Amino acid sequence: MVEKIDVNITIEKVNKRLLEQNDRVAESIRKMLSEKGIMAVEFLGGPGSGKTSLIERLSILIGPSKVAYIGGDVATSFDTERISKLGVRAVQINTGGICHLEALHVEKALKTLNLEGIRYLFIENVGNLICPFEFDVGSHVRVLVVSAGEGEDKFLKHPMSAALSNVIVVNKVDLAPHVGVDVEKMVRDARKINGQAKVVVTSAKTGEGIKELAEALKLKL
Amino acid sequence: MVEKIDVNITIEKVNKRLLEQNDRVAESIRKMLSEKGIMAVEFLGGPGSGKTSLIERLSILIGPSKVAYIGGDVATSFDTERISKLGVRAVQINTGGICHLEALHVEKALKTLNLEGIRYLFIENVGNLICPFEFDVGSHVRVLVVSAGEGEDKFLKHPMSAALSNVIVVNKVDLAPHVGVDVEKMVRDARKINGQAKVVVTSAKTGEGIKELAEALKLKL
Repeated sequence: MVEKIDVNITIEKVNKRLLEQNDRVAESIRKMLSEKGIMAVEFLGGPGSGKTSLIERLSILIGPSKVAYIGGDVATSFDTERISKLGVRAVQINTGGICHLEALHVEKALKTLNLEGIRYLFIENVGNLICPFEFDVGSHVRVLVVSAGEGEDKFLKHPMSAALSNVIVVNKVDLAPHVGVDVEKMVRDARKINGQAKVVVTSAKTGEGIKELAEALKLKL
Repeated sequence: MVEKIDVNITIEKVNKRLLEQNDRVAESIRKMLSEKGIMAVEFLGGPGSGKTSLIERLSILIGPSKVAYIGGDVATSFDTERISKLGVRAVQINTGGICHLEALHVEKALKTLNLEGIRYLFIENVGNLICPFEFDVGSHVRVLVVSAGEGEDKFLKHPMSAALSNVIVVNKVDLAPHVGVDVEKMVRDARKINGQAKVVVTSAKTGEGIKELAEALKLKL
């Protein structure tokens, strides 16, 4: 038992040091972007919640030439290829199995991006409803994306994710009737957990709610 | 830079020690369950992939009195309450924010479960398509559950999850036409990543494929 306690204390110390380092880098990223007049919007959510599709829709609304994109994934660059096709300057971060993005990843990706004329940086985190929320990656705004197809109870089951976001999206609402999900209940749950966040109902497939999401993010179209 | 390297080496050492400890506990759980004639089946997958619904269906097929259940979640005990209602002996593990189950969690939960007459232990991991796969929790079989509603590319985007599972399930196939997903392509992708695993197509909603899943798991009905 003594061994176990020692190990845990070491881990806590190391984790604290790493998180402090992460936060310092995140703060410097945010400052640099603010100085350039770029707003960084981070999208977080489980696998298949529809983060990439929402970013596609918003990029088209804004005008792809004003948007840069950093996509985090454990293995492929599918999402970055999709976004890139729109004419958005896009960089892929393959985390090599790591379950979340960190500020150092974003700092490295930013070095390869030409930010001339860019107004918005969309950062898509790894598809994971838990771990990414612990790490500040230097964004100004955090958008949590949950798909109606994931089931009605998702906000209650992952309250920290909703609590740590600025905008909360119930996406794929076109699926709600097929899975028997009460979207209004999901919205109420989200509001109950985080009274400060804006809650938006969208379908990246049909286009429903995309303008409302752009308004909630105060994007200039 | 030197500081960063030091920290990483410490983390690696500590992680290695923790994983070794985890594996020892997992091995002892597996041995204990085998001696009692209990088969432990672990269900892993992203949030809302339908793990709980599949476990409900299988428990009813087997007979709830022969099933025990351990459910891992970051915050609520919704899933355990659902399973418990069927007459299954069920225990909840709230990980308190931790993104995966570990063998020590399962060991602790097992101490509270009466295993008399139990033939199958279903362990439902935290809804997360990445982290839980790293930790052996003492199960005999691993079932990866991916929902068709999460999109066609899911296996390719998370190849380690498919590679580290014994049975791979494409669930919620009733949603496939609504999201424009080619289920056959998903099955082919899964087979390509893991030629050893059995791949089953299910809908916990309609009951499609549940018997095939029971057969793939060699459950005695």
